[in-house]
Amino acid sequence: MKWIKTPLESERIKYIPPLPDLLSDLSHIALSEGAKTTAKDDAEQIAAHFPHSYGRPVLRFTNEGGKVEAAPLRVGVMFSGGQAPGGHNVITGLFDALKKLHSESVLYGFLRGPIGIVENEYIELTDELLADYRNTGGFDLLGSGRTKIKTGEQMGYTLKVIEELKLDGLVIIGGEGSNAYVAVLSEYLLSKGCKTRVVGVPKTIDGDLRADLLEISFGFDTACKIYAELIGNIARDALSSKKYYHFIKLMGRSSSHITLECALQAHPNIALICEEVAAQKKTLEQIVDEIADVVYARAEEGKDYGVVLAPEGLIEFIPQITELIEELDTLLAKGKNGDVAQKLSPENRAFFALLPIQVQQQLLLDRDVHGSVKLSHIATEQLLIHMVRENLKRREGFKGNFTTLSHFFGYEGRSGFPSNFDASYCSALGHVAALLVHFGCTGYMALCHNLPYPIEEWQAAAIPITMLMAMERKGGTERPAIPKTVVDLDDEPFIYFAYQREKWALGDEYRYPGPIQFGPSRLTEQPTFTLLLKRRG
Amino acid sequence: MKWIKTPLESERIKYIPPLPDLLSDLSHIALSEGAKTTAKDDAEQIAAHFPHSYGRPVLRFTNEGGKVEAAPLRVGVMFSGGQAPGGHNVITGLFDALKKLHSESVLYGFLRGPIGIVENEYIELTDELLADYRNTGGFDLLGSGRTKIKTGEQMGYTLKVIEELKLDGLVIIGGEGSNAYVAVLSEYLLSKGCKTRVVGVPKTIDGDLRADLLEISFGFDTACKIYAELIGNIARDALSSKKYYHFIKLMGRSSSHITLECALQAHPNIALICEEVAAQKKTLEQIVDEIADVVYARAEEGKDYGVVLAPEGLIEFIPQITELIEELDTLLAKGKNGDVAQKLSPENRAFFALLPIQVQQQLLLDRDVHGSVKLSHIATEQLLIHMVRENLKRREGFKGNFTTLSHFFGYEGRSGFPSNFDASYCSALGHVAALLVHFGCTGYMALCHNLPYPIEEWQAAAIPITMLMAMERKGGTERPAIPKTVVDLDDEPFIYFAYQREKWALGDEYRYPGPIQFGPSRLTEQPTFTLLLKRRG
Repeated sequence: MKWIKTPLESERIKYIPPLPDLLSDLSHIALSEGAKTTAKDDAEQIAAHFPHSYGRPVLRFTNEGGKVEAAPLRVGVMFSGGQAPGGHNVITGLFDALKKLHSESVLYGFLRGPIGIVENEYIELTDELLADYRNTGGFDLLGSGRTKIKTGEQMGYTLKVIEELKLDGLVIIGGEGSNAYVAVLSEYLLSKGCKTRVVGVPKTIDGDLRADLLEISFGFDTACKIYAELIGNIARDALSSKKYYHFIKLMGRSSSHITLECALQAHPNIALICEEVAAQKKTLEQIVDEIADVVYARAEEGKDYGVVLAPEGLIEFIPQITELIEELDTLLAKGKNGDVAQKLSPENRAFFALLPIQVQQQLLLDRDVHGSVKLSHIATEQLLIHMVRENLKRREGFKGNFTTLSHFFGYEGRSGFPSNFDASYCSALGHVAALLVHFGCTGYMALCHNLPYPIEEWQAAAIPITMLMAMERKGGTERPAIPKTVVDLDDEPFIYFAYQREKWALGDEYRYPGPIQFGPSRLTEQPTFTLLLKRRG
Repeated sequence: MKWIKTPLESERIKYIPPLPDLLSDLSHIALSEGAKTTAKDDAEQIAAHFPHSYGRPVLRFTNEGGKVEAAPLRVGVMFSGGQAPGGHNVITGLFDALKKLHSESVLYGFLRGPIGIVENEYIELTDELLADYRNTGGFDLLGSGRTKIKTGEQMGYTLKVIEELKLDGLVIIGGEGSNAYVAVLSEYLLSKGCKTRVVGVPKTIDGDLRADLLEISFGFDTACKIYAELIGNIARDALSSKKYYHFIKLMGRSSSHITLECALQAHPNIALICEEVAAQKKTLEQIVDEIADVVYARAEEGKDYGVVLAPEGLIEFIPQITELIEELDTLLAKGKNGDVAQKLSPENRAFFALLPIQVQQQLLLDRDVHGSVKLSHIATEQLLIHMVRENLKRREGFKGNFTTLSHFFGYEGRSGFPSNFDASYCSALGHVAALLVHFGCTGYMALCHNLPYPIEEWQAAAIPITMLMAMERKGGTERPAIPKTVVDLDDEPFIYFAYQREKWALGDEYRYPGPIQFGPSRLTEQPTFTLLLKRRG
């Protein structure tokens, strides 16, 4: 092969991830239909958008059917959106299942994401080619992309390619946006009388694509374990040198699942959860004050070090900031440059003055092509550090040192070698996707559930994607979308965290997860706390 | 114990790192003396500074002596300076060896680094206490610190504590500064007629503490493997999404060993080696031009992504920058604020104008208590990104996208669980340190060599620290010090890198090391390339 494999890679591609008992032998696999479904919200409108596919039943797989008689299948597959560990195993799982169903089945991979099918760029996936990608990270087998297939023209090209390739099925591995596209495309194909089944596979490290039978998307397990290792290492470093506060920003713009899971794994002194900030309508000053309280109390105990976690989306959850940005937007749109800050309402002006100059400049100048603030560019961790420092200066009697370091962990977790959990989960998801094509199901998402339990006990199912949808209102337009599932403050992971955090704030109860292990031992079979606590809950 | 162990931690503390054959059984261990030694440089002056300890011979251990008759030993140990993976194993190795020599031996640990002995803060280290720290990262068993013991008063306190505790030996685990302190303290004790032996253990993730028999310091192996995993993950992410250039700054202020090793492990498109920059007297524009050349050439092949590594010390190796800073220092010392930049010489002024505003401000304003620029604060990766972007704008025909992300990896590698290599190496170093105390050797550094070969074949030795020393001239004063060993451009690791890098620049020959594995398989016994290439060389 073209690249030089590391020893771990050479071993790892030979690993055969165990499958749930149900999926190990497909010879008597069968479907059982549950009740009809509705939408997550706005049922009437969703039904109107999906006249051919709305309301279909939840499906569960059993292995109590008659002997399966399968014809060869022709299937296409693509990645869509950002990388998540395990993506290659969805494809190898899909390939393996298609070949188990019929040895003459064929699998094509579209290149560079959804654009690949519009531009008719694909490769045939063979056992030989896939051999090098089993249990590896990244999406580099096919590449990925964020292009949205929207226009009628693009849909037309897609149909043309599907017909030319005589595809029985198209499997799209993606997040909530890409799965909404699965629903739209399957509806479109049905409306054109095309029998190709479109199937979605739930991918995102963010962990915010969830539903009843969708316990977690793939990639979350590995990504959180990679981040938690690093956080644990940093915590141990902080505890050893006893002189730094580490502010660690973690990926997760729309939800805090990653931060919550990493907190459960590494027990930092502070972890900010956006959903709680929003629920309690916290101001930035309040958040800063709470951090400074912990720094102060620790200094009283002679501890001038600590670890603070914050999701990258934090500032978007602070109403104060969104209000400030709204007013700035209005003022800037009027072309009032120069001294815009002076034109702000007294409340916003006072708040603006509290921000570090770097952030003030980003709010005024660093705008995207639409004139919007690039919120994701704002150095949240720097903002917090600056404001906590100012806050501590105002406190009498603070005798500690507040020396800080900042980190951002994100990209290093998206393409790592998948954990054994994600390796098995993805392979199983690929199997379910193949079965959905075989059974003629379109507009469905492939699922495995019962995931907090041993792999052999995992169950397989599928839900119509319309069931996850509601109308999204944005900038005056409406469209069907899959709302993200944010952290539920009444759910076990957050409750457990909230129960423990006071102890973690002052004590040094850091936990050191260490690097992900792939050996055949019990170390390799630890699911995330997000799942484990579900089992307990 | 006070903290909650992770599954990996619970397993890992039970691991028994294999020892070299020579050290497995201490019952017939003996010393053989080599030739007398001199200093690395300035022999006369070093000899004058160390009248009682200069010129002693290199020592090698054999197991062909008579039956060892050991008395119980009383030994103290401390960490000094920044963390490196394996530190706890030096202490457990030391403890185990002392107990093997005589079951009534006692080991004390001084707290918070060298300050602990001056302030007489210590704990007795027991088997029970150490059980929780075997094969773990961090220095949190004792803590560490950077306080230098310099004054006569501090030396006096140290002697007093040593005498009160009736120490036969004091083991100091540290970098080149701390080992110089070992030499100074042992000379001081000899001059006072004190028989306590002071022994150094070579620690630093930077890999720049080296000599003939000192092939590598401990911690380098684990730290590089942690960074290389992350770089590999990011490279795979870049190759998958094909839209980002990742600029990764790595720890290493005085040398580029970490960057070189990570380059050998992960095959980035570009890795900047400070020693080469200095040797070729490269200007910042030349460096930027070379990076832009690669970006340009890759864009021609449709590749708008890549990985660039740079050591954090890079800018300190660019003569142009040190000259600019020197002139700024002179001007600022004269109190010329306001428009200092305009007062620069034409050459420096032109160069200053090329820098991003953020860096200009850091050079003018962000100064430490002595008025010096905080060079380590300068965002080298941001500087490079800015200048490469400007350079590309000036190039006709550049049609690529240059979208960047920056990272800094350092603290996450200093306190990770030690690799099997470092676990064994540190345990062996602890054994050698115990033997040096037993044999009455002071001012020596404990060593293992033959490290590129299987553990059982490693050899044990010791060198008088004066042998590593030369006079350091800094700010008008002179003192004996251990010069750092920078990357040797004529040595195998750099030669191999230089031979490969053109291929890596344009091809995507990324290598994916994955997380460190601790299982009992051949994956756990990969030394660094820095060592492996020595074997080949």
